[in-house]
Amino acid sequence: MGNHNGDLAGGLSHEEIATASGAREGQQTEAEEWHASAGKGVNPVSYSPERPEGDAIPTHMMLQDMEDENDDDNSLFPTRRPILQEVPFDIFPVCPFGCQCYMRVVHCSDLGLTSIPNNIPSDTRMIDLQNNKIKEVKENDLKGLTSLYALALNNNKIFKIHPKAFQSTKKLRRLYLSHNQLTEIPANLPKSLAELRIHDNKVKKVQKEAFQGMKALHVLEMSANPLDNDGIEPGSFEGVTVYHIRIAEAKLTSVPKGLPSSLLELHLDDNKITAVELEDFIRYKDLQRLGLGNNKIKDVENGSFSSIPNVREIHLENNKLKKVPSGLPDLKYLQVVFLHANNIAKVGVNDFCPTGGSTKKTLYSGISLFNNPVKYWEVQPATFRCILGRNSVQLGNY
Amino acid sequence: MGNHNGDLAGGLSHEEIATASGAREGQQTEAEEWHASAGKGVNPVSYSPERPEGDAIPTHMMLQDMEDENDDDNSLFPTRRPILQEVPFDIFPVCPFGCQCYMRVVHCSDLGLTSIPNNIPSDTRMIDLQNNKIKEVKENDLKGLTSLYALALNNNKIFKIHPKAFQSTKKLRRLYLSHNQLTEIPANLPKSLAELRIHDNKVKKVQKEAFQGMKALHVLEMSANPLDNDGIEPGSFEGVTVYHIRIAEAKLTSVPKGLPSSLLELHLDDNKITAVELEDFIRYKDLQRLGLGNNKIKDVENGSFSSIPNVREIHLENNKLKKVPSGLPDLKYLQVVFLHANNIAKVGVNDFCPTGGSTKKTLYSGISLFNNPVKYWEVQPATFRCILGRNSVQLGNY
Repeated sequence: MGNHNGDLAGGLSHEEIATASGAREGQQTEAEEWHASAGKGVNPVSYSPERPEGDAIPTHMMLQDMEDENDDDNSLFPTRRPILQEVPFDIFPVCPFGCQCYMRVVHCSDLGLTSIPNNIPSDTRMIDLQNNKIKEVKENDLKGLTSLYALALNNNKIFKIHPKAFQSTKKLRRLYLSHNQLTEIPANLPKSLAELRIHDNKVKKVQKEAFQGMKALHVLEMSANPLDNDGIEPGSFEGVTVYHIRIAEAKLTSVPKGLPSSLLELHLDDNKITAVELEDFIRYKDLQRLGLGNNKIKDVENGSFSSIPNVREIHLENNKLKKVPSGLPDLKYLQVVFLHANNIAKVGVNDFCPTGGSTKKTLYSGISLFNNPVKYWEVQPATFRCILGRNSVQLGNY
Repeated sequence: MGNHNGDLAGGLSHEEIATASGAREGQQTEAEEWHASAGKGVNPVSYSPERPEGDAIPTHMMLQDMEDENDDDNSLFPTRRPILQEVPFDIFPVCPFGCQCYMRVVHCSDLGLTSIPNNIPSDTRMIDLQNNKIKEVKENDLKGLTSLYALALNNNKIFKIHPKAFQSTKKLRRLYLSHNQLTEIPANLPKSLAELRIHDNKVKKVQKEAFQGMKALHVLEMSANPLDNDGIEPGSFEGVTVYHIRIAEAKLTSVPKGLPSSLLELHLDDNKITAVELEDFIRYKDLQRLGLGNNKIKDVENGSFSSIPNVREIHLENNKLKKVPSGLPDLKYLQVVFLHANNIAKVGVNDFCPTGGSTKKTLYSGISLFNNPVKYWEVQPATFRCILGRNSVQLGNY
């Protein structure tokens, strides 16, 4: 393995070198290493060797884990530990050409890649393949990547994901598929997912089994897809505990009723929702933040908000409301209500703040009413008796 | 703070809740919290309060660090620890609307934001603002974010970064500015930077002081900018230890000579380089990987590669070479040479492998010669006597 070169080490940390080299102790010679994995043709983009996988991972690939990472830096990234004086020569054995591999992170963004490189180190925890020209995730592209927890494939040309592509990645928590050409939620995504982003694709349908078994799916961003209310099959979210869903810039005409009951945040901006109805939020009793801006809402049915008593923020700006929705004074924790750019012509003195007995547990920190036809001088100052300070209300044109 | 709600906790870990709520012990009441930071108008995108900063960080913002993170998951992301039964109500006090904040990571991608939100928690370690419409990084946008180590601003419309914008972020290690409208390397970037990506901007010039004092800048990706050789001011990289530079898809006509001498990887694909000259790599004696594909190289001067004795990969595909560059047999560690799609008409028996006394320490695992006018049947088999296996050479059309 020879050619130890102290200079080369520079500011590379112990871990960086270990990770980059994949060589520490008990390593094979280079020839052995390459031989062990021979039998594949040269690939002009990412040459062999094939990634070893599963139990077959040779000793030299079994890199030290990063248990001792209580320094200031983040564990994902190089630290500035004492420099290893003896650097193994074999510093880039299995990093795809043009990528950077360090600390079990593989960075391959903006390389014009047309496929997922096949020489990704098998202990990789995070792969960044953003901004390439990848069209497909093929059956074996992620094979053996059993430690993978984050995969960024956003901004590619992916139209197809093989149903067995994620078979190895049983620890995958973050999957970023935004800005691709997918027409549906890929089948058989890992049940370990905590976050799925599939913004700006061509998804028309959320199949019943799309999220099956994903008990820990907490964040789902699927905005900017041609999804309408019928596209969400009943039962799609059964048993799934999502806290944050965003389906903005889609084709929804009403608040979808089959979303998970666990929701804390629901963002439905930039749709074609025309009304909020009494039963819309019955299922979402824990909702804290509600985004309905930039829709076509003319009316919020009386009592609609009474099923979400914990709500803190309601965004209804840029709609067609003719009056302040009813029920706001009863929302004890409501702090922010955006109503600007509507058709509100009148604001009553009790539209926002409770009267008499009932109490509000938090004061408003943000009420916006500008860009409405209401005559601001006719609004009684007492209307805003439960706000934090004078800057909490925006009445006039902004 | 009332309203403790066990159900809400769901699968949220101890840390997630602590981070999301910013409330643990000694917290102020909500009113106090908002009052302490009042005095700013409502902002329809990201309402107040202003971020507290520096010594002024109130107790309730001083979140526990994540020292005890030796579980399987990555520290940046939610873990599945035992659930805290008592969840403070105040679960989203300072997370910008539509974003997700957890584990000191703030995710605000794809929200159509036109500016950086002003209510980012002050202890944030990573901010993802990709794919928005941000035009500017203003003086106070990052104020007080002293723990920030990664900032993703790629895919925005940034044309201007205030020279004092990074004054607080003294720990910033990763800065992603790719796909924006910047015309130069922003002034006064933090000296702590380990990685800078500024791919696909309008940078024409690397000023002498651009990287001054950035001793730990290890990765620099500045491809797809209209940068020519004169644009790199002499001395720009003095005292900077970069290991990986990529200036692909630019306007280089020769190998730049003023890059850091520490380079291990140099990627100059897709430029207009016409020749490789004797002195081109003298400065880069540690180079291990060299990417010169997709240029207009007609000639590699004899001896050019003798100054990079440790090189392992040379990519010269898609050029105008008439012969195999000289000196390859002397490169003891060379494993990969891409020469496909050139004008090579003849391959000599000693073009790749050493003769007699001199030894090669690694065998070739990848030699590509396809798409050349050479008559393959005239190439002697002994030419490839120092390769790993028969699949290591690609001769015929691919």
